[in-house]
Amino acid sequence: MAVRALAFDVFGTLLDWRSGVAEAFRAAGVADDAEELADTWRAAFFSMTGEVNSGARPWGNVDELHRSALDRLLADRGIEVPADQRERLVAAWHQLDSWPDVREGLEALRRERVVTALSNAHVALLVDLTRYGDLRFDCLVSAEVARVYKPDPEVYLTAVRLLALEPDELMLVAAHPLDLEGARGAGLRTAFIDRPLEYGPGSNPREDPDADVSVGDLHELAERLSG
Amino acid sequence: MAVRALAFDVFGTLLDWRSGVAEAFRAAGVADDAEELADTWRAAFFSMTGEVNSGARPWGNVDELHRSALDRLLADRGIEVPADQRERLVAAWHQLDSWPDVREGLEALRRERVVTALSNAHVALLVDLTRYGDLRFDCLVSAEVARVYKPDPEVYLTAVRLLALEPDELMLVAAHPLDLEGARGAGLRTAFIDRPLEYGPGSNPREDPDADVSVGDLHELAERLSG
Repeated sequence: MAVRALAFDVFGTLLDWRSGVAEAFRAAGVADDAEELADTWRAAFFSMTGEVNSGARPWGNVDELHRSALDRLLADRGIEVPADQRERLVAAWHQLDSWPDVREGLEALRRERVVTALSNAHVALLVDLTRYGDLRFDCLVSAEVARVYKPDPEVYLTAVRLLALEPDELMLVAAHPLDLEGARGAGLRTAFIDRPLEYGPGSNPREDPDADVSVGDLHELAERLSG
Repeated sequence: MAVRALAFDVFGTLLDWRSGVAEAFRAAGVADDAEELADTWRAAFFSMTGEVNSGARPWGNVDELHRSALDRLLADRGIEVPADQRERLVAAWHQLDSWPDVREGLEALRRERVVTALSNAHVALLVDLTRYGDLRFDCLVSAEVARVYKPDPEVYLTAVRLLALEPDELMLVAAHPLDLEGARGAGLRTAFIDRPLEYGPGSNPREDPDADVSVGDLHELAERLSG
């Protein structure tokens, strides 16, 4: 298996978005069910990316979709949050902590292979997140360039083209079987990384039996790929 | 002047392409006038980027234009170079040394502002060059995404859009007045950096009286921008 480059999903795979967003809800005075609100917001955002891909919704970047999804969520729940606090909630997605293995794990993986982000986040958001977490990538590839969201094959193929690779020379690393399935459909290799805390303790375990590799963290991935 | 991000031209501004390419000519057995050949190759490549911008030539990335320009140059001079050596010459542009101030200078500048590459080089070439030189950018923006070359305004505006900035919040740093003029035409700020050795000792001095800042190296730029 001649994997020449690794492409990383970001939210959930590298970053603990749920804790950061729940904390932002609490800072906005919405203390009850902050984690549940974060989950619902995330799900509504994800549903909107599907609307963009189907053509039912015009292109909007992650900030724009987050803003729409938040407005709808708060209206549905009858929760009052002033406009400036809503903007702070949208901005909370620009400053999220990484899982503990990520910063050093990326450095280790970069020693042997090209390492890129491959995210639905727009480039400016990826820049904020990587600066915040001091995460070093060789490249940032965003769905923004393809104007369509993962798991549309065009996003994965954009990364393949920009890195001047064959599809099977690029491996997507993600915690989400749907993302990995999309990557496989585009001809990429896949690595499943288990992030059992993405949706909090006790959430449904995930696995991806079709992945080329399944690991618990980035250090294990580095070992597996160099072995 | 609220400059929020710096965009760097790469060849000549950050990298000493001439020494590396001349050395590659010598390695290919073309020892006479290796520097002059490098200069002529560079000029022919540059002329081809103009043909792409005018629509006279279809899009080709830097490797492809380098290959065409090299074939024509060697034919014009009646110099025989086998195909594998020609590929090594094209590949030499993927491994170029930086000017001495660059690696640490970029680190210093990154502490205060977003720092991106903004280059005619395609993304895969930028990845090779930044890995080779251990240069850290927050982002790589390539003419490849705009499908047109600098100094077309669309290249500069692509960086502006991807970084979610206003044009005057982005400053192009380059050693080439033509590049800086293109950036100003798109509304960017500009910093001229003097690289008197780009074309070898004794070459014509350059300056850009219209630049917002003129400096001798990246450390001086960091001082000027934080002052």
